[in-house]
Amino acid sequence: MKHPTQTIGPIGVIGGMGPLATVDFMHKVILATAAEHDEQHVPLLASNDARIPRRPAAILQGGPSPLARLQELRDLLLAAGVSALVMPCNTAHHWHAELARDCPVPFPSLIDLAADAAAARTPPGVSIGIIATRATLAAGLFDQALAVRGRQTLLPSDQLLDDAILPSIAHVKATQLDAARPLMQHAVQRLLDEGAAVVILACTEAPIALVGAPPTLLGQCVDTTQVLAEATVALWRELGVAAAT
Amino acid sequence: MKHPTQTIGPIGVIGGMGPLATVDFMHKVILATAAEHDEQHVPLLASNDARIPRRPAAILQGGPSPLARLQELRDLLLAAGVSALVMPCNTAHHWHAELARDCPVPFPSLIDLAADAAAARTPPGVSIGIIATRATLAAGLFDQALAVRGRQTLLPSDQLLDDAILPSIAHVKATQLDAARPLMQHAVQRLLDEGAAVVILACTEAPIALVGAPPTLLGQCVDTTQVLAEATVALWRELGVAAAT
Repeated sequence: MKHPTQTIGPIGVIGGMGPLATVDFMHKVILATAAEHDEQHVPLLASNDARIPRRPAAILQGGPSPLARLQELRDLLLAAGVSALVMPCNTAHHWHAELARDCPVPFPSLIDLAADAAAARTPPGVSIGIIATRATLAAGLFDQALAVRGRQTLLPSDQLLDDAILPSIAHVKATQLDAARPLMQHAVQRLLDEGAAVVILACTEAPIALVGAPPTLLGQCVDTTQVLAEATVALWRELGVAAAT
Repeated sequence: MKHPTQTIGPIGVIGGMGPLATVDFMHKVILATAAEHDEQHVPLLASNDARIPRRPAAILQGGPSPLARLQELRDLLLAAGVSALVMPCNTAHHWHAELARDCPVPFPSLIDLAADAAAARTPPGVSIGIIATRATLAAGLFDQALAVRGRQTLLPSDQLLDDAILPSIAHVKATQLDAARPLMQHAVQRLLDEGAAVVILACTEAPIALVGAPPTLLGQCVDTTQVLAEATVALWRELGVAAAT
């Protein structure tokens, strides 16, 4: 007899933003799964195709919108039978509402999940540090999500962005992790020094840059990739339970 | 103007055997790519869905064949527009010829690529050690591929399989890498001691088990995942060149 979950399509991953961040997400899904055999792992169908108009240029400079291409990738995954969708990229969530509208399967927002995780770890009224691209910050994604949860954001200065965060992200995208780490550590520490209760790593390159960083520093971060991975495992379990009842 | 490769579908990955091995393959594709920006990475569409009848049971005990399910996954990726296919699992290559027959896109064999790599590093007539599941060994996949290249195989004993190789693979599938490493190191060293010129890691869990092993030991191994990753990068380049001319 087939286990009920065998009839459920895999979870679709709109990835490639960037490619290493998608692999990091898939790895974290596996690590977050209590599995002894291959078949117990969460089935994924992952598009790791980076040919998507650049999100920062679209938000900051009026460049070509990635929305049509993201819809194309979403529809490709839906046509392949996925039972849910996730998108391991913070900046791309600027278009999440449009992608999730009319979407026939669950498509949780990484921003909402990360804001929930930060709120669960802090008292109301505190400031939450945000490590993100200038585009994610300009889009105000976390300002809104944290405000409705009674927290405010503590954003990096332009100088911290230009000198540390953006170069570190670029190093990760070029797979130069040793160059990325000290810059990202510096940025997180600065936000903590300025009074952040926790720091949301709101760019999927940030936790990759911080591999090997001191545990005390990592313990004060909310890794949005990890949050999405754990939510994906929970979502898969819910889909299986729903199919079985 | 679009770069010609933008019109080419991603490379399809028939994965999930096991899930961590597929992530390791995707990671190695990224590391093998000379890329400074997201868009320069090889686009992949990866099925990391382990719900495939077990290959060892099918080969060794007459269990249900995975062929129909593998064909289903292949056709799902073809329908999504992939321009080529790869399958990062040695044992599943028992069915590669049937999957590649009538396949409208390139689908290189991991076994042939690994045999080429081993032959390129050794003189004719030597013995090549094989680390693999009992099923891969029973199917004789490397015996044939190496014989036509003038090399012979040196296979692990039943005892080495039962005491070291198979438990190590099981630990990787359960994400217990610290337990996996010493067992796999022991197995590789034993084959070298018995006279292997190089050792083919003919199971995609083996290189994961050996992360952190001594470089001198790793230097005597042919990592089939790495070989397939490099071939995938080269294949993507060829597809782009072909489309541009």
